[in-house]
Amino acid sequence: MSLINSSTKGVFVIACTPFTDNGGLDGESVGRMVDFYYEKGADGLTILGMMGEAPKLTQAESIDVTRLTLKRSEGKPVVVGVSAPGLAAIGELTKAVMDMGAAGVMVAPPSSLRTDEQIISYYRNVVETVGAEVPVVLQDFPLSTGVQISAKTLGVIFEAHPSIVMLKHEDWPGLQKITDLREAEAKGRRRTSILCGNAGVFLTEEMQRGADGAMTGFAYPEMMVDVVRLCNEGKYEAAQDVFDAYLPLMRYEQQPGLGLAVRKYVLAKRGAIASAAQRRPAAPLSAVAVKEVDKLIERQARRLGMLT
Amino acid sequence: MSLINSSTKGVFVIACTPFTDNGGLDGESVGRMVDFYYEKGADGLTILGMMGEAPKLTQAESIDVTRLTLKRSEGKPVVVGVSAPGLAAIGELTKAVMDMGAAGVMVAPPSSLRTDEQIISYYRNVVETVGAEVPVVLQDFPLSTGVQISAKTLGVIFEAHPSIVMLKHEDWPGLQKITDLREAEAKGRRRTSILCGNAGVFLTEEMQRGADGAMTGFAYPEMMVDVVRLCNEGKYEAAQDVFDAYLPLMRYEQQPGLGLAVRKYVLAKRGAIASAAQRRPAAPLSAVAVKEVDKLIERQARRLGMLT
Amino acid sequence: MSLINSSTKGVFVIACTPFTDNGGLDGESVGRMVDFYYEKGADGLTILGMMGEAPKLTQAESIDVTRLTLKRSEGKPVVVGVSAPGLAAIGELTKAVMDMGAAGVMVAPPSSLRTDEQIISYYRNVVETVGAEVPVVLQDFPLSTGVQISAKTLGVIFEAHPSIVMLKHEDWPGLQKITDLREAEAKGRRRTSILCGNAGVFLTEEMQRGADGAMTGFAYPEMMVDVVRLCNEGKYEAAQDVFDAYLPLMRYEQQPGLGLAVRKYVLAKRGAIASAAQRRPAAPLSAVAVKEVDKLIERQARRLGMLT
Amino acid sequence: MSLINSSTKGVFVIACTPFTDNGGLDGESVGRMVDFYYEKGADGLTILGMMGEAPKLTQAESIDVTRLTLKRSEGKPVVVGVSAPGLAAIGELTKAVMDMGAAGVMVAPPSSLRTDEQIISYYRNVVETVGAEVPVVLQDFPLSTGVQISAKTLGVIFEAHPSIVMLKHEDWPGLQKITDLREAEAKGRRRTSILCGNAGVFLTEEMQRGADGAMTGFAYPEMMVDVVRLCNEGKYEAAQDVFDAYLPLMRYEQQPGLGLAVRKYVLAKRGAIASAAQRRPAAPLSAVAVKEVDKLIERQARRLGMLT
Repeated sequence: MSLINSSTKGVFVIACTPFTDNGGLDGESVGRMVDFYYEKGADGLTILGMMGEAPKLTQAESIDVTRLTLKRSEGKPVVVGVSAPGLAAIGELTKAVMDMGAAGVMVAPPSSLRTDEQIISYYRNVVETVGAEVPVVLQDFPLSTGVQISAKTLGVIFEAHPSIVMLKHEDWPGLQKITDLREAEAKGRRRTSILCGNAGVFLTEEMQRGADGAMTGFAYPEMMVDVVRLCNEGKYEAAQDVFDAYLPLMRYEQQPGLGLAVRKYVLAKRGAIASAAQRRPAAPLSAVAVKEVDKLIERQARRLGMLT
Repeated sequence: MSLINSSTKGVFVIACTPFTDNGGLDGESVGRMVDFYYEKGADGLTILGMMGEAPKLTQAESIDVTRLTLKRSEGKPVVVGVSAPGLAAIGELTKAVMDMGAAGVMVAPPSSLRTDEQIISYYRNVVETVGAEVPVVLQDFPLSTGVQISAKTLGVIFEAHPSIVMLKHEDWPGLQKITDLREAEAKGRRRTSILCGNAGVFLTEEMQRGADGAMTGFAYPEMMVDVVRLCNEGKYEAAQDVFDAYLPLMRYEQQPGLGLAVRKYVLAKRGAIASAAQRRPAAPLSAVAVKEVDKLIERQARRLGMLT
Repeated sequence: MSLINSSTKGVFVIACTPFTDNGGLDGESVGRMVDFYYEKGADGLTILGMMGEAPKLTQAESIDVTRLTLKRSEGKPVVVGVSAPGLAAIGELTKAVMDMGAAGVMVAPPSSLRTDEQIISYYRNVVETVGAEVPVVLQDFPLSTGVQISAKTLGVIFEAHPSIVMLKHEDWPGLQKITDLREAEAKGRRRTSILCGNAGVFLTEEMQRGADGAMTGFAYPEMMVDVVRLCNEGKYEAAQDVFDAYLPLMRYEQQPGLGLAVRKYVLAKRGAIASAAQRRPAAPLSAVAVKEVDKLIERQARRLGMLT
Repeated sequence: MSLINSSTKGVFVIACTPFTDNGGLDGESVGRMVDFYYEKGADGLTILGMMGEAPKLTQAESIDVTRLTLKRSEGKPVVVGVSAPGLAAIGELTKAVMDMGAAGVMVAPPSSLRTDEQIISYYRNVVETVGAEVPVVLQDFPLSTGVQISAKTLGVIFEAHPSIVMLKHEDWPGLQKITDLREAEAKGRRRTSILCGNAGVFLTEEMQRGADGAMTGFAYPEMMVDVVRLCNEGKYEAAQDVFDAYLPLMRYEQQPGLGLAVRKYVLAKRGAIASAAQRRPAAPLSAVAVKEVDKLIERQARRLGMLT
């Protein structure tokens, strides 16, 4: 069992939850998908996030997905999303998944929070609930949560709670926030890991601003793996070349709400999962959208071919 | 076991969830509180609502509270709040509580809904998830959910789903909505029961506009019982006299966020529960607020004395 | 010309803007209404607020209303609402009305603000725009603006800008905020005046928590005048008696959106303005609502009669 | 003078408002920028939009900008943004700019609207206010306004008001909405023009879904001109090649809040305006951001070179 910490780097893929066409949990595909992610170079996984259709799973199913994923990960770190309206549910699921060997839990703020004080107080309650020994990822995703957390407020939270070891960064715009956080660390604040989301659409700039890697669900994890590696090697032009080749599809996948459908479609097409089925309420791809995605994939392959 | 239906009338008290001072579920107080509500004249209860600190309960505790309440209610109808971000959790809890003898379940819309279509589609999914044989209360509380549902949209939902038998009405302003709904029924739309919330602060007008009763948690349920009874007897002046005597405290109790603390304080003071303790995150009454509430109770008693 | 300052006390009535039945500005009624407010004991007025249908006025009409009101006020202080999406409009209207003799301007935060930093920065921009010599009222009305400002953030703003001399307090719940602000002043922060809004529904508690008076538009300004005077004399029971007599109507008038219609109806009924007409988009009272209001007024008169 | 209508096609560039370094309106740059846009192939312009810093202009300045732009446009159509919290301001500015020769006005919904009924009623009020002879562009930009308008509700509005001739389409995701609108037209609903915004990041798909062109402020208008032209010629692969070359910068420019700074920086760099200065509250580019933009421009030039 490995835990994430404030120095964690690399690519954590946000995993989807595979279902069969009639809506059952597809345990076989969980395994296949996990293999797929690691074969493409992922350093770890994040499950039961917003993209994981977590609210559509019963508690028992959430535990099942975690068990299957952890088993197949063979010691690689798996972060589990435990966001919920109430602290009781957060505490319950955290206890269960940490006991099973999760590497940490991820918590996004509930959308009712407004003032800095409310946000700071919320994460104090979370840490008290899950216990200070559990590594926590703070998910900062205002587009989805409606909660805006300034770099200064993040700093107050990080100072107060050493167990919050990682920021899942997906503010938009958010580049300056990375710069601000790293500058505060340069002046003495303790370090946190920063992995970036937002479908990866700013990954090259984010890495150069000081991010430690990516945590997002783009269906071509090799893009993140290559971009992060090239950036770490200082090969920014090459990283941008790879990035640009994938950008048209990333952009398409980033569409709120639709993104999950695109990812599941692509993952099924790539053989990583058996079916692109979502549970109700589902937003499947229309026939026109499927054609658009197929076209983007075809062009992407062509362009990647020109890179090598 | 009794189920609510579209003709249900009377007073359903929104029950709090009693805790001991160290945060445990206080099962003994659940029983005492249930007795208290029925002694004051309640026709039924609603548990695990927003006022019931439901998000602070584990799934097992939610089941416990339901079992204790149902047992003590001896056949009186108990509605259970099952609102959750995901349909899976709604379905799971609904199945459990209906099997135990609940009279129906209450579902508020998630705050992400915006257009009429999204709202209509959400309740279709809810009915498909819980099953068309389960009576559903639609909670219309825009101040808390952020979701505005027009009378017309409510009508579309009611027409489509006969199992949605009741509206928990707490739009604000909401008087015209009651009038509009009853007028649509007069023109042929099927009837739904309308029980009113909002701490009761418009109960006299609501009854005269066509409501069937109250569903709220004011810590003096006898106010609701008396006002509903007097209105049903056509004694509107007497109803308003009773209402006015309680209004200063109702107004104080209606404060968002603080209301729960006031209710638990008053219920403990009246001996209905052992402790006013809330689970974290708690917002207890300050010493000044306690003095304000005590003053209001004292004046209320004096004024009620003058009525008789 | 008198300016408001950080010691200003008393009752500033939020004035409506009277229109004729065909939608024109009713200058004659402006004068009559101003007289009415002062006859009832108002210490000052606030015009062009949210209740003043300000967004329905052209710039020229806003200036006209201000001129007419100032002229008739004969030196009594008149605060002018200048909230607008852009600083240019705020600066323009402020310049115009201060040149004409306004006592200060009132600015609510635009609904796009979220973090404490954004709010603090907004009021810095406002003060720079209107000039540090212009007294500013900060309107804190989260129910309407969606912007939540903590007591701490208010303190930062007050410290930074001595020209922000007054808080129009209408947070809900907001009693603790008054206590917090006064405690911070007791520890050395400079004083600001606090006048309370929210239709007056917490005025007795607010006065005892340390407020300086009322700034709201309840159509019976004599309630605010009497309650504020009795509280200042330490006669809290008597103040509460007066308050309770008016509370049923206050409660009705506080309904968001409907409040303006109720106020204009009552003001017209009392002879303060010629017509209850609103400009488009208008939300007039239905016939049922008129009956409800009439009933409340009748009962209110009866109960006031019993007080003396 | 030319008016827009329901068949209008092509590229309308959203123009910025140029200021001098000390904050004055830079009339000379207005002219230069207008020339620049037409030289790059724009069919028309849209001024005083969200990107035009309209709320930072006094009414007189808004009129000035319109006059200067119209004069220099020599008969090409200029749409003017007139969104405002109140109908009076909308009516006033519309009258002024239509008298001067504007081609139409653009109105976004105020962020307070929620239900379909409220949205439909709002546009009825707008049309009544500006007059049914004035061509109106409905701006559908939920990310910024918070108002979600379904395709069905748009249809109701278009049916009711023939003077609403154009949709500025920037819902996200929004491709299906274009398809839905065009399908409803195929079934008999009257046609409206659809020009797309969102910085152009879905322009190729939008054109193939049935859009008539673009209305956005990307600082390389030649991208929109070329993509729209190539799509109209059925050369979708070539259109996508051009699009892909610009996409990395488009993506960067699309960042909410930052976009204006990027555009002004690029326009100044290209010589279209003298200064990138914004009026307060300004969000200028940091030095790091400037380097990122310069890098993107350099790569963009290289890639465009490879296309020809």
